[in-house]
Amino acid sequence: MNNLPRVDPIDKEYMQKAHDHILTLTMPTWALGDLLDLSKKLCGISRTLNPSYVRKKIFIFASDHGVTEEGVSLFPKEVTAQMVYNFVNGGAAINVLARHANASTVVVDMGVDADLSFLSQDFKIADKKISRGTKNMAVTEAMSRSEAEASIQAGIDIVFDTEMNTDLYAVGEMGIGNTTASSAMIAAFLGLSPEEVTGRGTGLDDNGLLKKISVIEKIFKLHSLNPKDPIDILQKVGGFEIGAMAGMIIGAAHFKRPVLIDGLISSTAALLAGRLEPNVIDYMIFSHSSVEKAHKHICLALEQKPLLDLNMRLGEGSGTPLAMNLIDASLKILSEMATFTSANISKSEE
Amino acid sequence: MNNLPRVDPIDKEYMQKAHDHILTLTMPTWALGDLLDLSKKLCGISRTLNPSYVRKKIFIFASDHGVTEEGVSLFPKEVTAQMVYNFVNGGAAINVLARHANASTVVVDMGVDADLSFLSQDFKIADKKISRGTKNMAVTEAMSRSEAEASIQAGIDIVFDTEMNTDLYAVGEMGIGNTTASSAMIAAFLGLSPEEVTGRGTGLDDNGLLKKISVIEKIFKLHSLNPKDPIDILQKVGGFEIGAMAGMIIGAAHFKRPVLIDGLISSTAALLAGRLEPNVIDYMIFSHSSVEKAHKHICLALEQKPLLDLNMRLGEGSGTPLAMNLIDASLKILSEMATFTSANISKSEE
Repeated sequence: MNNLPRVDPIDKEYMQKAHDHILTLTMPTWALGDLLDLSKKLCGISRTLNPSYVRKKIFIFASDHGVTEEGVSLFPKEVTAQMVYNFVNGGAAINVLARHANASTVVVDMGVDADLSFLSQDFKIADKKISRGTKNMAVTEAMSRSEAEASIQAGIDIVFDTEMNTDLYAVGEMGIGNTTASSAMIAAFLGLSPEEVTGRGTGLDDNGLLKKISVIEKIFKLHSLNPKDPIDILQKVGGFEIGAMAGMIIGAAHFKRPVLIDGLISSTAALLAGRLEPNVIDYMIFSHSSVEKAHKHICLALEQKPLLDLNMRLGEGSGTPLAMNLIDASLKILSEMATFTSANISKSEE
Repeated sequence: MNNLPRVDPIDKEYMQKAHDHILTLTMPTWALGDLLDLSKKLCGISRTLNPSYVRKKIFIFASDHGVTEEGVSLFPKEVTAQMVYNFVNGGAAINVLARHANASTVVVDMGVDADLSFLSQDFKIADKKISRGTKNMAVTEAMSRSEAEASIQAGIDIVFDTEMNTDLYAVGEMGIGNTTASSAMIAAFLGLSPEEVTGRGTGLDDNGLLKKISVIEKIFKLHSLNPKDPIDILQKVGGFEIGAMAGMIIGAAHFKRPVLIDGLISSTAALLAGRLEPNVIDYMIFSHSSVEKAHKHICLALEQKPLLDLNMRLGEGSGTPLAMNLIDASLKILSEMATFTSANISKSEE
């Protein structure tokens, strides 16, 4: 792709100003730990000492995966479309948690293997469908190069269409089979073995896990993957929703908005986005540590410490609304706490 | 103490009912991990499948410590009283975080070495002062046995006075020197060495840490502590605020209310409460992992996994409002999510 939107580095000067301000607040030095790191980072992202993210949007990118033909998931692929209806009706976990966080949700059809046009005609979902699911990557390439680029562009386009009324972005997904695509992409990017990156997805037993590993081994035998060419990896073993999330991350960073990452699949998109444009990495906030074992490899590679660790493995963006509460709390610490001087408190004897 | 209020075990039947209900919700089995464990536990505490904790109260127990004479803290002991003013004026971290969580705060003077009577006359703090600070435990017993019992009773009494308009309790504290008291109590209860339980408190450097360890060694040489007699330990090496928090935990459990624990000092109170009445342990929710190294020993001893791990070490109850958001989120999952049947979603092939 030649025409990715420009992403500036985050602003170190605002981070330093935030740092200095925090040291004046009535508590022992950096005693609120990661919460203070978070508020400092947000000042650097938003170029202000008073960031405020009222209009929070969680995008759920839905897509199907041809690789489900190999029997890599516990759930039938029909569940992708069924869950889209559940999102639209407000009954899924992400709906509940987003309402709790005062965030809105937008479902994007990137490639669900069902006709959902009547939902997009009613403005209940956004239609960016590339095709009705990827091809089976254990047999052929998951998509064409132009489809891979189109999936990334779709995510970028959504940000350009929504940035006027969005202060903070969050990316989530739904796609039966997409832990297989993610695991393959992570192994390709980070040079890891199928065993190191393959987890139980929605709940495979030991036999299911072994089968999934063997499918990923088969995929690796079939394709030669070039870690220097991120779009090559997306094309051969990725998914439309993964490309779109990477695009959204780049778009959000272009507009200097923080972007919340959820679990394994959205973190794979974060890895892809970081390979396409390294400046985006500092705009990411990892909301939680996934149970999926490959997740920690991404966190290490991108030097990110997720805010929460609650043994979650749901996807849908479900970790992001929980992290929003910590973001808001960290910003209030910055703006509402008394200083040692204003409160007349003796300083430490350092 | 002979007359602790009775504490019933939490209700396993409601926990099982909650478990069964959760398995019908539209997500892979237990995919929201600890959030589901939390909602299940709350059903057991509150004997309902729809717990709701609107009226959340955070109690900040303030008290001074004679052991500060030994130079164990970076801050002068005057800061205890100064911070009480900060709490009353709403400028401390706990005020900011409590407002964010829609929780109210109550400051309780258990033994601040200052005349705060005008604050209690104005109903700005609660006056349960036992004396103006404990005695220096490196020289003599911190308090008398009757004072130790009175501190516990004060926490119990506050619950009896507030339970009519409190759905959820949280305990926090302020007291320069109280990590030393806590470390000594933890070592006594769990049979650990001074090195294993002593941390940097508000930010000691290496020399300060060594000195603090040597003070705790001195304390251990002076006192013979009986781990079978929890009040003996509180009396000799504890603090008034620690006794009061233990009392509040017991009182909250008596009234079948969940009680949120903060960091090192309130966890020490939790340990004390659990030794006085083991049934209280299941009513506790540990909000976060403290940076203080002794904290993990308490979590192991009480078999508690804190919800958050944000490198915090402030005290004041500051971890508890952050955990409240997770509590509310976990309860909405229970009550607002669609079921596989209601949403017409195919189940897994397990």
